[in-house]
Amino acid sequence: MASLLRAATWGLFLWRGYCSRGTKGELSKGFVEALKAVVGSPHVSTAAVVREHHGHDESVHRCQPPDAVVWPQNVEQVSRLAALCYSQGVPIIPFGTGTGLEGGVCAVQGGVCVNLTHMDRILELNPEDFSVVVEPGVTRKALNTHLRDSGLWFPVDPGADASLCGMAATGASGTNAVRYGTMRDNVLNLEVVLPDGRLLHTAGPGRHFRKSAAGYNLTGLFVGSEGTLGLITATTLRLHPAPEATVAATCAFPSVQAAVDSTVHILQAAVPVARIEFLDEITIDACNRYSKLNCSVAPTLFLEFHGSEKALEEQLQRAEEITQHHGASHFSWAKDAEERSRLWQARHNAWYAVLALRPGCKGYSTDVCVPISRLPEILVQAKEDLNASGLTGATAGHVGDGNFHCMLSVDPEDPEELRRVKAFAERLSRRALALHGTCTGEHGIGLGKRQLLQEEVGAVGVQTMRQLKAMLDPQGLMNPGKVL
Amino acid sequence: MASLLRAATWGLFLWRGYCSRGTKGELSKGFVEALKAVVGSPHVSTAAVVREHHGHDESVHRCQPPDAVVWPQNVEQVSRLAALCYSQGVPIIPFGTGTGLEGGVCAVQGGVCVNLTHMDRILELNPEDFSVVVEPGVTRKALNTHLRDSGLWFPVDPGADASLCGMAATGASGTNAVRYGTMRDNVLNLEVVLPDGRLLHTAGPGRHFRKSAAGYNLTGLFVGSEGTLGLITATTLRLHPAPEATVAATCAFPSVQAAVDSTVHILQAAVPVARIEFLDEITIDACNRYSKLNCSVAPTLFLEFHGSEKALEEQLQRAEEITQHHGASHFSWAKDAEERSRLWQARHNAWYAVLALRPGCKGYSTDVCVPISRLPEILVQAKEDLNASGLTGATAGHVGDGNFHCMLSVDPEDPEELRRVKAFAERLSRRALALHGTCTGEHGIGLGKRQLLQEEVGAVGVQTMRQLKAMLDPQGLMNPGKVL
Repeated sequence: MASLLRAATWGLFLWRGYCSRGTKGELSKGFVEALKAVVGSPHVSTAAVVREHHGHDESVHRCQPPDAVVWPQNVEQVSRLAALCYSQGVPIIPFGTGTGLEGGVCAVQGGVCVNLTHMDRILELNPEDFSVVVEPGVTRKALNTHLRDSGLWFPVDPGADASLCGMAATGASGTNAVRYGTMRDNVLNLEVVLPDGRLLHTAGPGRHFRKSAAGYNLTGLFVGSEGTLGLITATTLRLHPAPEATVAATCAFPSVQAAVDSTVHILQAAVPVARIEFLDEITIDACNRYSKLNCSVAPTLFLEFHGSEKALEEQLQRAEEITQHHGASHFSWAKDAEERSRLWQARHNAWYAVLALRPGCKGYSTDVCVPISRLPEILVQAKEDLNASGLTGATAGHVGDGNFHCMLSVDPEDPEELRRVKAFAERLSRRALALHGTCTGEHGIGLGKRQLLQEEVGAVGVQTMRQLKAMLDPQGLMNPGKVL
Repeated sequence: MASLLRAATWGLFLWRGYCSRGTKGELSKGFVEALKAVVGSPHVSTAAVVREHHGHDESVHRCQPPDAVVWPQNVEQVSRLAALCYSQGVPIIPFGTGTGLEGGVCAVQGGVCVNLTHMDRILELNPEDFSVVVEPGVTRKALNTHLRDSGLWFPVDPGADASLCGMAATGASGTNAVRYGTMRDNVLNLEVVLPDGRLLHTAGPGRHFRKSAAGYNLTGLFVGSEGTLGLITATTLRLHPAPEATVAATCAFPSVQAAVDSTVHILQAAVPVARIEFLDEITIDACNRYSKLNCSVAPTLFLEFHGSEKALEEQLQRAEEITQHHGASHFSWAKDAEERSRLWQARHNAWYAVLALRPGCKGYSTDVCVPISRLPEILVQAKEDLNASGLTGATAGHVGDGNFHCMLSVDPEDPEELRRVKAFAERLSRRALALHGTCTGEHGIGLGKRQLLQEEVGAVGVQTMRQLKAMLDPQGLMNPGKVL
């Protein structure tokens, strides 16, 4: 009897939500009206151009548009949207700035894309407690602009001006992680709308303590869950004192090994380096052309130091001694804000610089992370593989964490080349796994690395992750087809 | 038919495992023989004195002995033990050094205590990758002794010489957390035997990368789970460069507010203080007597700085300027290892020093953590409450994290006083919750704070935690009665 009732109710849902379920299809008129009743007519769109804009990120994963896009204005609306979709079996895809790199927003089963950028308030700043609460529309640059006169900043910097809740959802990190940690280290609390619409505060409502030993770490569970367990509607972040002074430096090395050895040596000497970025000679060459730098074309480190004037002097001196001991040439440093900014802008633009080497091509970026000591061998192997595969690619990355990116250019008109690029990226990930590393240090699993995740964590690991997903999202409606 | 079979099998289990289930009771002879078959006869004990030793930690929670104690020699044996207990419905309680403070090892439903201290190997040290893999019998002091000549150390220091896997299980932290983070920040991977005996590597087998965005954060889920989700049989830890030089300092303040303001100011100035500990005047008085210190009897900060000689000079100067600005007197520092050690030994012995104020009494320690800015008010409230309650207590703690301990002495012959002490501790936790804090910064929930956890994380938080428990331990056999 109960199961008959369930089946009947389910039929009603299908009728109300979708014309046909299981495959993507147009949402029923009644369902779209229901969405409008939650967020207001102007905040729902089923226009093709809007849906297409929301069907892809910055990766080469093909556009898979959602059936509708909605812009909730507050957490209550998000909760009602989730409950509505849940009751009718319609998938939900959270959307921030769309700057992901693993196809995390592609609507593989259609559904409703929840664009959270209209919720863009900084809800609470507690300077003495080094914490801030932000809504999903607040980007890292917007936050740092807001913090400008507070003496504080938020250091996690993946390059793109991503939304902070999106960064929490993907477990982002970037150039400053070697000193300040990743999102996993800097999220204190999350407000999450669960798939059925219930509201969870992972560390308890309104809490913003620095540490706790109270119960299971729910915050850690949602950071990096890529929108597959719930919608993050606010995040409480740990802030850091803004550096008193900053110096950037560059130095060129005779080999990748020498650059990595210098990095390990600098870390072992406890020089509190804020950024330590590796760029291979192809990246440097591309940056020289694209960003008008004048660096030696060789494996290079870009470094940044934060501290008092006195402390910086000592840090610079130590880093120079260490790098010279490992054969570095041209250790040059820049204290001037403009000069530093030019250098880091060039680093952040490395992606476009590499693309510019082959006009008309699209970019394909992949990232892996290995124990630092294994970096030289994987970088050398990657280079050999690129040559053998006849591909154009460059490597750059956060060497202090053992994390690096391989940036490849691919002709969009040449499906065979795209296949070769994908095969190369897979081999790179498997090499990282063989060296006790991970198939992604910061981009996430998304659509493209699901098989690699299984190889990485093993059968029991995947079983456990599947159990977690089934526990929190029994209908499999939250960003389906991602991670697992 | 299937359910009949299940019931019959279940009956068999009861017969084999326990004489009577649901209540504590003697294990059946057959079951004890099965334990011996797994670990060998000499490594199983049902002797009363052994069981009693394993039925309590360092807290005042009454001894609740397990029905048997086993000492596995390797992970395969742990796995077989878990599968055996799981198949027969017998609870398992993991046991390390027994230095917990919230009754985490009390066998509230009887069962088998798995003492993991015979597994005491350091399995793998990777100095260039700043990582080490240790078995559960390795304590933090043993690890640091092993690391002595490597230029590295493991900084998390809860005071007791606890086992590192036990520290992972309780999410321990301590005096160095303000600079180096807690166990949550320093565990890279865990080997866990799940309740049914399956082996899980939370970050994948053998992996020891610095960061990852691959799938759900299983490591974070098990750190701080207090043995309720599985048995930790190895942990991969992040190591740090050993400080080149160390200086300790003390300074006394006219008020709690001035001490806390100094702390916030030091952190805002980005002075990379390694430890910053608050001791109230009662604790200082007790330490003066017990550890032969000669400190002013006033709210006091104990500080420690790590770095190069040059960096230390600057850090000390800045800290002195800041503390003097807030009215500190007697800023004195100690570079000499012996003098430093005396100071920190006194800090670690503060617990015994407070106990010595009232000979014959037992100690009751509780900890909470609040946003730093709320520390002065909660410390003042706590003092007033102690006076009003006619209790003897002192406060000390990790002020840089907003975490502090209240150490009370209680007459073991006076149940009425114990009730008053417990009521005070509960009020203290509720005050922390009202100030957006947590009912425990580092001791854990254990037996005593389960109701407080519910108030802290709210209904949906508790529901989610219960779901997690049910998912990983459907029979509720792993350290039952703790956390939830």
